[in-house]
Amino acid sequence: MPAVITLTSDFGLQDPFVGVMKGVILARHPEARIVDLTHDILAHWPAEAGFWLLRSFEYFPQGSIHLAVVDPGVGTARDVLLVESKGHYFLAPDNGLLAPIVERDRSAGCRRVQLEKLAALGFARPSSTFHGRDIFAPLAALLASGQIKVVDISEPVTSIVPAWVDEPEVAAEVINGVVITIDHFGNLLTNIDERLLEGWVEPRVHAGKTTLSLRRTYGEARPGEPLALINSFGVLEIAVAEGRAADRLGLSRGAPIVVRDSVRRT
Amino acid sequence: MPAVITLTSDFGLQDPFVGVMKGVILARHPEARIVDLTHDILAHWPAEAGFWLLRSFEYFPQGSIHLAVVDPGVGTARDVLLVESKGHYFLAPDNGLLAPIVERDRSAGCRRVQLEKLAALGFARPSSTFHGRDIFAPLAALLASGQIKVVDISEPVTSIVPAWVDEPEVAAEVINGVVITIDHFGNLLTNIDERLLEGWVEPRVHAGKTTLSLRRTYGEARPGEPLALINSFGVLEIAVAEGRAADRLGLSRGAPIVVRDSVRRT
Amino acid sequence: MPAVITLTSDFGLQDPFVGVMKGVILARHPEARIVDLTHDILAHWPAEAGFWLLRSFEYFPQGSIHLAVVDPGVGTARDVLLVESKGHYFLAPDNGLLAPIVERDRSAGCRRVQLEKLAALGFARPSSTFHGRDIFAPLAALLASGQIKVVDISEPVTSIVPAWVDEPEVAAEVINGVVITIDHFGNLLTNIDERLLEGWVEPRVHAGKTTLSLRRTYGEARPGEPLALINSFGVLEIAVAEGRAADRLGLSRGAPIVVRDSVRRT
Repeated sequence: MPAVITLTSDFGLQDPFVGVMKGVILARHPEARIVDLTHDILAHWPAEAGFWLLRSFEYFPQGSIHLAVVDPGVGTARDVLLVESKGHYFLAPDNGLLAPIVERDRSAGCRRVQLEKLAALGFARPSSTFHGRDIFAPLAALLASGQIKVVDISEPVTSIVPAWVDEPEVAAEVINGVVITIDHFGNLLTNIDERLLEGWVEPRVHAGKTTLSLRRTYGEARPGEPLALINSFGVLEIAVAEGRAADRLGLSRGAPIVVRDSVRRT
Repeated sequence: MPAVITLTSDFGLQDPFVGVMKGVILARHPEARIVDLTHDILAHWPAEAGFWLLRSFEYFPQGSIHLAVVDPGVGTARDVLLVESKGHYFLAPDNGLLAPIVERDRSAGCRRVQLEKLAALGFARPSSTFHGRDIFAPLAALLASGQIKVVDISEPVTSIVPAWVDEPEVAAEVINGVVITIDHFGNLLTNIDERLLEGWVEPRVHAGKTTLSLRRTYGEARPGEPLALINSFGVLEIAVAEGRAADRLGLSRGAPIVVRDSVRRT
Repeated sequence: MPAVITLTSDFGLQDPFVGVMKGVILARHPEARIVDLTHDILAHWPAEAGFWLLRSFEYFPQGSIHLAVVDPGVGTARDVLLVESKGHYFLAPDNGLLAPIVERDRSAGCRRVQLEKLAALGFARPSSTFHGRDIFAPLAALLASGQIKVVDISEPVTSIVPAWVDEPEVAAEVINGVVITIDHFGNLLTNIDERLLEGWVEPRVHAGKTTLSLRRTYGEARPGEPLALINSFGVLEIAVAEGRAADRLGLSRGAPIVVRDSVRRT
């Protein structure tokens, strides 16, 4: 079976942008298997795409090609990155989107796509505003079908643009993180990984004016009550049982989330 | 060809939840054919999912596996049901979602998934909040690909959790139903099946303060005029020609809809 | 590989309408490859569907079947068209939707589907409100799989219903067009093709109370500044850098867009 291609973008599904990318892929790679990860990334905010890609990619088969286009710099001179990590491939603009993937894998391979080589591969001159269709989609199709190899169209780079959102600051008894996204249910997802809380005895989560202890499931809180838990993607989440935490707590992307341990840890 | 897998949920398409479920399926069953039925079920309202599943499943090929995850009890001790009806398979939490399917088919087979057997099949310990990814998606993949059989992972049950919305009360000259969902066009769809109206001469539909007679198509009403009709899924629907009935009539899910016959039936 | 089938509609993705159409296709054509172009066409406005279809279809493989159902006349006596243009097939109601495709291709083949022949092909009697499921989807399935041929179920027609939106009026130094759609980013897309501006020296775009000169990319304007450009689909677009032009300029579908040349052309 050919590699799965996943698509992540801020294009939405209202317009035919995503459909056209799939047409471009199928025109070059008729057997393509394409899965939408999400197209509702906050417009022009690569950090959210990087967060979800990092937390999602390992559920896909080895060898998958993850194409992520959140690209406020489209038409400018920004590079196109091709990253290999844990048996998966990632294609995205070099704007910080892939930094969370690379930061967590010291053996990740980072390469810059040699755009100047694409004309010889039959690529038309790209438009200045839709590289998802003109560069990313045909690249993914040719890589997934084996018509081109990674080394044919890219060269190693030693540095990439860093992530737009810093990793949480971790001190002895406090973690300073932020809300990185708000999901469909109004839950606040933070950039605080469960591993940072290992060994903590009684963590207290400060979100806006609210202080919360950690629960295991939504069902452990009364309807309407706010709670904190480690969610199914392994990050600290603030929720309201049967409600919308974002509305209830008045918090949005970027809001600071502080965790303190009320008991001295061993 | 392997069985078609349909997906129904209240997850929305904003986040990668649905995409990740597809990744999980493809990782276990590379040839999977997956179709989204809808992911915009009203959050935590299984009744809407059951309504649409009942009205939709027979348009899919025989042998399809219909996975429906609207699961306010995720992480609690609720069962996972596996229902077989009319040559189709259904996987959903035992929370009333599948009751409309079972109620209409006396020969439906109802089974409880033996979750305790899943570890031996290579399932990781499920998270407490995302069983769509951790239990339902891999089960559907293994069933669709024939890697496991229904009898291997489930046992018959004699009762299931009933539907959240009662079937309409039917008396000699009156039917008491409710609005079960509101579609994209603002039309009010009821739980009143066309069969209940067989033999009625001049049914009058009472919706809020409005009384309507039955038309055949939207085009039989003047623009802006409310109307009632039997829709393409075989249920009584309240619409407004070229308008949104939900807004115009101020009605929502659960609103009572009463049908009376103004002429004594023969 | 069988032909790709693309789907365009105003059905939205909230309800299972699109999923059910895919079920119908897969039940008749198990190997179908189906791509959603968009289902968020403004309700009952075929002009938007025709605009996007015209600008998108050539990105799909030759032989693709493009099914477009924006059908305010469903259940009335309107015809179903089957158009062949540039190696692609189009199925849509004869309500002006396909007129932009036909207008640009003098050798396009226009045929009327002989609905009276469908019963003999095993089609059930269609509902009066959902021909996407009952007529268009099974037709596309049977054509894509080669089970029926175009000539078997259609006959040539010499005229079709014209487009709902006129082509721009073009005079010596002025072009009068309109906003045809607003995309996910709030950009205003017009019906003014880039070819109309060939040879213009210093075009000035009048949109509402604003006058704009033509830029090459969004990045050439300051954040918040309105701009005009030829977009990646080859039409004149009004945008606001890092903002939403529709909100900022207070313009919507149908708003007049006038282009004048401030320099006498050679």
